[in-house]
Amino acid sequence: MSKTVFDRLQEESVNSPVCLGLDTRYEYLPEVIKNEEGLTDGEKILQFNKEIIDNTKDLVACYKVQVACYEALGLDGLKAYADTVKYARDNGKIVIGDVKRGDIFATAEEYAKGHFTGDFEVDIITLNPYMGEDAIKPYFPYLKDEDKGLFILLHTSNPSSEDFEEVELKDSNKKLYEVVADKIDQLGKDFIGETGFSSIGSVVGLTYPEEFKKLVEKYPNMFFLVPGYGAQGGTAEDLAEVLKLSNCAVVNNSRGIITAHKGKTEGEDYIDYIKEATRNMKEDINNCLKS
Amino acid sequence: MSKTVFDRLQEESVNSPVCLGLDTRYEYLPEVIKNEEGLTDGEKILQFNKEIIDNTKDLVACYKVQVACYEALGLDGLKAYADTVKYARDNGKIVIGDVKRGDIFATAEEYAKGHFTGDFEVDIITLNPYMGEDAIKPYFPYLKDEDKGLFILLHTSNPSSEDFEEVELKDSNKKLYEVVADKIDQLGKDFIGETGFSSIGSVVGLTYPEEFKKLVEKYPNMFFLVPGYGAQGGTAEDLAEVLKLSNCAVVNNSRGIITAHKGKTEGEDYIDYIKEATRNMKEDINNCLKS
Repeated sequence: MSKTVFDRLQEESVNSPVCLGLDTRYEYLPEVIKNEEGLTDGEKILQFNKEIIDNTKDLVACYKVQVACYEALGLDGLKAYADTVKYARDNGKIVIGDVKRGDIFATAEEYAKGHFTGDFEVDIITLNPYMGEDAIKPYFPYLKDEDKGLFILLHTSNPSSEDFEEVELKDSNKKLYEVVADKIDQLGKDFIGETGFSSIGSVVGLTYPEEFKKLVEKYPNMFFLVPGYGAQGGTAEDLAEVLKLSNCAVVNNSRGIITAHKGKTEGEDYIDYIKEATRNMKEDINNCLKS
Repeated sequence: MSKTVFDRLQEESVNSPVCLGLDTRYEYLPEVIKNEEGLTDGEKILQFNKEIIDNTKDLVACYKVQVACYEALGLDGLKAYADTVKYARDNGKIVIGDVKRGDIFATAEEYAKGHFTGDFEVDIITLNPYMGEDAIKPYFPYLKDEDKGLFILLHTSNPSSEDFEEVELKDSNKKLYEVVADKIDQLGKDFIGETGFSSIGSVVGLTYPEEFKKLVEKYPNMFFLVPGYGAQGGTAEDLAEVLKLSNCAVVNNSRGIITAHKGKTEGEDYIDYIKEATRNMKEDINNCLKS
């Protein structure tokens, strides 16, 4: 059996559980890049992203690229998205396309084609489960045959995740996200890799550490993408408590890293601040794991 | 008070409740377009879409463009998406970007910018509610100031909508989609136009006519985008029963119209079949309304 993308991600995460989020907005760029002549906004963003990848690729498990930030700039932005994910993958890194798509049947097949082949090809995409199994199954041919993976939204990091994700159900006394988790776990049984993790992972916010811990205990085959570290309030201690149970997660940080230079420099040395922030996050978590 | 986009859509729907879905896949094109030289696949799709718009714009309330079909072709496809929505809007038609995006805070702001301004600007987009209110509110500035609108997924037309949308909740004995509907109705109160409809509509499948009828009765300010007509099993009779209560919906048909030429012609006259299918659907519904 060859390794799945989640086998590779899990192995990377043991060295560094950091998922670096390239949610790159134009305003995040240092003046030294903004002032370059003859480049579109998208090309400037690409240049910034490439410099970040060159300088952080040995410090992170993977990159997560938030497509919304690129869609905001139209075609120029999506060219930057395509070139960014290609550059990271050409550097041997696993790339998560944070697209949170959710549609059914033939439409989902189109999304699968769009994000697992061609210009926007990435290794793993995020999906929204609201429409049910019909919105997840069309991606399965790519899991088996093309070594791709999925992260399905379960319990997201935002306060209004309580609106629907946390509602309690009548028959089971479970919360909605727990029922989604049951479904993901069940569907994932057909896609277990050699590390024991399935190619269908899920998204759980570090802002809800108790819920996260329970999910890890209940679903040993599930790998997690964890937003909410840093600005949103999740801490390395919270994460370490879970990772001590199982090396089953990568934790995302976007703004906390890619704006680390802001207020400090607008020159070429911006990359030093970004590199330092990445290393600090990695060490912060690894120190908590040792203690 | 000037008219909102939902005021205009409601007025269009009285003449024809048909929403024509440009879920255009390459294989739908007639040979006469496929064989044109010097055009990319995206450019061929655009040419097909333009011909459809030219010949159906007086027969339909609006167009819904399924972005997944364009994302599948990468940058070339998204150029065709941008040019298609622009062409339809330049022809005075309301365009629904069927993007089903769902993300929070600053990320949702980026999606709003991406789909309500610039290359991909449309009048209304579809959204996924799973992440709660945080995933809906960032679009609000565009509703008030830019005359844009939203269709939020409630009860979709697919069989596995029962997986999560239909689960029954403990506290209220309501189903999840009913709780989502309550939230949409409450948020929409701030955006009511002169026809009485709010700028936050919702998506309900014609494959669940009883549920649809109850929603229409319960939420008089809610306008509906209704998939599921034709191939999926929804009928004009089902629709007419609801529209007799209130002119509160547009009903989408994609494949049933834009592949009407398949098996009949691969020549220039393909457009006659598409036009006929559009007119037939409009008359089918209007005849049921009169009976």
